[in-house]
Amino acid sequence: MRDVAIIGIGQTPVDEHWDKSLKELAGTAIFNALNDAQRETADALFIGNMLSGILSKQENLGALISDWIGLPGIEAHKVEAACSSGAAAFRAGLLAVSSEDVDSALVVGVEKMTESLPIETTEALATAADADYESAQGLSFVAINALVMQLYLHTYGWKHTDFAPFSINAHANAIHNPYARLHENISKKDYISARMIAEPINLLDASPTGDGAAAVFLIPADSLLPDNKKIIQVVGSASATDSIAIHNRKDPLWLSAAEISANKAYQQAGIKPQDIDFFELHDAFSIMSVLSLEACGFSKRGQAPKLGLDDQILINGRIPISTRGGLKARGHPVGATGVYQIIEAVQQLRGEAESTQVTDAEIGMTQNIGGSGATIITHILRSV
Amino acid sequence: MRDVAIIGIGQTPVDEHWDKSLKELAGTAIFNALNDAQRETADALFIGNMLSGILSKQENLGALISDWIGLPGIEAHKVEAACSSGAAAFRAGLLAVSSEDVDSALVVGVEKMTESLPIETTEALATAADADYESAQGLSFVAINALVMQLYLHTYGWKHTDFAPFSINAHANAIHNPYARLHENISKKDYISARMIAEPINLLDASPTGDGAAAVFLIPADSLLPDNKKIIQVVGSASATDSIAIHNRKDPLWLSAAEISANKAYQQAGIKPQDIDFFELHDAFSIMSVLSLEACGFSKRGQAPKLGLDDQILINGRIPISTRGGLKARGHPVGATGVYQIIEAVQQLRGEAESTQVTDAEIGMTQNIGGSGATIITHILRSV
Repeated sequence: MRDVAIIGIGQTPVDEHWDKSLKELAGTAIFNALNDAQRETADALFIGNMLSGILSKQENLGALISDWIGLPGIEAHKVEAACSSGAAAFRAGLLAVSSEDVDSALVVGVEKMTESLPIETTEALATAADADYESAQGLSFVAINALVMQLYLHTYGWKHTDFAPFSINAHANAIHNPYARLHENISKKDYISARMIAEPINLLDASPTGDGAAAVFLIPADSLLPDNKKIIQVVGSASATDSIAIHNRKDPLWLSAAEISANKAYQQAGIKPQDIDFFELHDAFSIMSVLSLEACGFSKRGQAPKLGLDDQILINGRIPISTRGGLKARGHPVGATGVYQIIEAVQQLRGEAESTQVTDAEIGMTQNIGGSGATIITHILRSV
Repeated sequence: MRDVAIIGIGQTPVDEHWDKSLKELAGTAIFNALNDAQRETADALFIGNMLSGILSKQENLGALISDWIGLPGIEAHKVEAACSSGAAAFRAGLLAVSSEDVDSALVVGVEKMTESLPIETTEALATAADADYESAQGLSFVAINALVMQLYLHTYGWKHTDFAPFSINAHANAIHNPYARLHENISKKDYISARMIAEPINLLDASPTGDGAAAVFLIPADSLLPDNKKIIQVVGSASATDSIAIHNRKDPLWLSAAEISANKAYQQAGIKPQDIDFFELHDAFSIMSVLSLEACGFSKRGQAPKLGLDDQILINGRIPISTRGGLKARGHPVGATGVYQIIEAVQQLRGEAESTQVTDAEIGMTQNIGGSGATIITHILRSV
């Protein structure tokens, strides 16, 4: 097993791209990544996507996109793990390069969600939950997360307003990210008065959907690197699952797949949580930020809201999160999100994060969640 | 990169399993593979599936199935490459083990196609073609293959009846496979008089859909093996793509992705086409058998129907194909097919193919096609 480095990143803004098809979005991100890597081709292409079959009536994205980017012939296929499809595709590319089967790999996460009716998108997203025991009972995805948040507030005695710092931080950071979906600061008052979606989750607890694509270029770490680029190496990578239906878990407030995959990744990297300089976590809903921070060892159980209230999640805090806006404000084009997270970590490690740069960032972690904690994939990157 | 061996196989019959859900089918195949491998768990699970999001309103199959089989926690995700999803998942499992990231992997291909209306299934299958330039024009999947077959007949001067041996052979072999969908011999007369679907493709040119699941268990080749089993090693594995829309190809009668992936696999295995003892090819339509045989070097261009007419594709012929019934008669539960092919190759190499055993079979090839030749994945297995 050989070490793998990321030498190219490329993305589109997350937005309502009504003038661009799925393959055009993917192509734009890929060409940007190829340019950044100073390469013209790759041996293989791995695609993270969740909804193309349902919303765009298009599967076989491997052939579709490799053809569109002018590389028909290369190996290509799609990887699906609900909202963690992006990280799952990244991990597939990583294993392909580390196995020595290929010497270079492109990974693209792409999703097109805004061209369908909102009810269609909501129905499509519900396929991440248990079709028989959750979706069929009328539980939408936000409803499942609302049940979890209610239980959390009840169990640990927090108030809804205690979650405000997570949204405020994400929006503040997204202002400086030209690829983010939302560019507006929000106040605590905005958070408190936002429209309710599924109690206690309101509009500012929830991440927006969007169209977007993000791509990275992978090579063996000992290969020739482009000039003037820091080497960004993948030092930890692990994926784990949990019961797909929340009611089957012993403790619905504990992301056991986050704990398993993070611990594996820490062990591979030879580090502990306190060595992580920033954490691009999966803040699809603010409750998910809290549960991730706890399961990954950044807070005691039931105490993560304190990290927000104490300003520890800000860029200059103990564990900066959502440094480029996170899912909450960069946006959450589901199958692409995991690759956006990797790109944002690379920006931090290269020192290219400008106004939201974490000082001396050397080790960053990303975590992508599929379903309500059912599939969780953790990566640790390091500049060497 | 370390060598990988297959030590367990398991399958369900291909049928209309109206009493079994997708996860139950997958579970049955997995438990059979675990039993055969004499194992109780695996480090990771890779799932080949194409249509679950559209037809079963269920994605996130990784978490769903690992939970169902009593292994929540293990890494698991879905791989999609249209009708080649099964082989793509097998290749993902192979790379995971060969990269040393995991020490054992389960691969399951699963598809549930018969619970939806036929028109829904037809629409879902059309997502394998180009949504903008093929499906949106009303071209179903069988219609695309019919255009290719018409062009082949016109270009090379064959008659439709010259394709009869491919269907007759598949049906004759399936009689002896208890897992096959169709157990009835057909005659040349049956073939000629079969109901037309899309001229010149009639009912006996086309493979039936079905529900089914097939699973294999992979370990490093140098690990401890179960007693009394021949070691079946994967000695070649390659995947390639072509333009997704037929009209974009320079030569619509040449499966360039088959040629690329087969040649790579031959090279990895250090062999030539003449060393292959049998070939489990992708006979979704009889025209596809012919094009595969030509692209993989078993026949001159435009001449493969001769292999059928000369009895060279029979069990005792030069290049036996569809030895357990193929897609044509074993059935084609699309995302599962690629894993069924692997299982059938393992049966031949272990000497467990009973009435359709290829004498002294030592090297077998499988080839799984997604779309009309858009994604093609080739594997070579060997008993050592």
